[in-house]
Amino acid sequence: MMMEQLGIKKMQGSIVEMLKDEILSGNIPCQTEMTQNELASSLGVSRMPVREALIILEYQGLIERLPNNHVRVAEFSADYFKRLFCLCGKLELEEMARQQAMEQSEVPPPEMSLPGEMEFHRELYRKSEHSYIRKTLQTITEIYIAFALKCRDYEPEQGRRLLGQVMEVMGNGAHERAEKDSGATASGSAEVKQQAAALLNQYFDTLTEAIMRERAR
Amino acid sequence: MMMEQLGIKKMQGSIVEMLKDEILSGNIPCQTEMTQNELASSLGVSRMPVREALIILEYQGLIERLPNNHVRVAEFSADYFKRLFCLCGKLELEEMARQQAMEQSEVPPPEMSLPGEMEFHRELYRKSEHSYIRKTLQTITEIYIAFALKCRDYEPEQGRRLLGQVMEVMGNGAHERAEKDSGATASGSAEVKQQAAALLNQYFDTLTEAIMRERAR
Repeated sequence: MMMEQLGIKKMQGSIVEMLKDEILSGNIPCQTEMTQNELASSLGVSRMPVREALIILEYQGLIERLPNNHVRVAEFSADYFKRLFCLCGKLELEEMARQQAMEQSEVPPPEMSLPGEMEFHRELYRKSEHSYIRKTLQTITEIYIAFALKCRDYEPEQGRRLLGQVMEVMGNGAHERAEKDSGATASGSAEVKQQAAALLNQYFDTLTEAIMRERAR
Repeated sequence: MMMEQLGIKKMQGSIVEMLKDEILSGNIPCQTEMTQNELASSLGVSRMPVREALIILEYQGLIERLPNNHVRVAEFSADYFKRLFCLCGKLELEEMARQQAMEQSEVPPPEMSLPGEMEFHRELYRKSEHSYIRKTLQTITEIYIAFALKCRDYEPEQGRRLLGQVMEVMGNGAHERAEKDSGATASGSAEVKQQAAALLNQYFDTLTEAIMRERAR
């Protein structure tokens, strides 16, 4: 039984992984209809792990459930990725501000060292105290951002530079707030947020572009 | 085989439904740890449907996965629901604006008739063209909003009044834009959005209050 469980778990992981890459790279075209049975037989697995994989892919936004319980690959466009990353950016900035505010008893370092790009996003969702927002950020990070960073045209230097600037802006903002007693000037904080948001949007635009070029190959 | 599949499907639905209500009402306290095996044996079902239910509950933000693959009921507070509904409100307003813009070729009616509260939220996610945002709005609507509306202290008259005002504001905004040729004055549109956002926040605050009172019983 244990072996069976492990087998299913491993297989489920790889079905999701495999379909995810095929869908995001455009190898399975947008709007392709699939059924559980077809997938199971073409992958040579039972229907149970396919069922699970489809539930997960639906929550990840990669497929849509049709009324007849068939599923269909979602419709992807530059606009799709822009809106998704815009949501991600808003939630990440909110988390950054919250997490900084909580750590503010220790005066924050004026500049934070920049971890890898994936680590930047992972740190933010792992430290989130909101289970739904954490899961949302985890999904966008592990599915969409991870895919973008693997695209052949993606330029990691530019990405790291932009994320470094975001952290600098946010770090300076926190430092200034800490110095002015607790008089967290609302206007200054709004300015910092706006500046950080613009940089983060610029960063996410490079991800969208990398994905769109990869899909056009 | 078909009967088995159906049985599993039915059971999965009811495990999710059942656990969801127990968790949101506070009958299973925050941070309670659970394992797949315990749940399966206490519910008298096999581990497969429990496995699926736990995947779904995790994506719904109701439970968190621990490193040892145990799960734990999430931590709920007024702040949890406020942040969740704030996210929902932002996405709903964005959808409303997009859906209105698409339908703008026909001059929109100055006032729209108000459907039931659930229908208001369902219409918005069903018409969304973004698979991830649609799934996010569907989850918040069908899990959290649906729970709030069932709470014993919830006042539907107030909720319907506030949603009616949101639609009026958005409808008037669209009407004005349609009249001024296509000169969609950005400032006017921002004002409309701000007004609608304030009303929608007020609406969602009544949901949070109803949930918190229900949990305190």
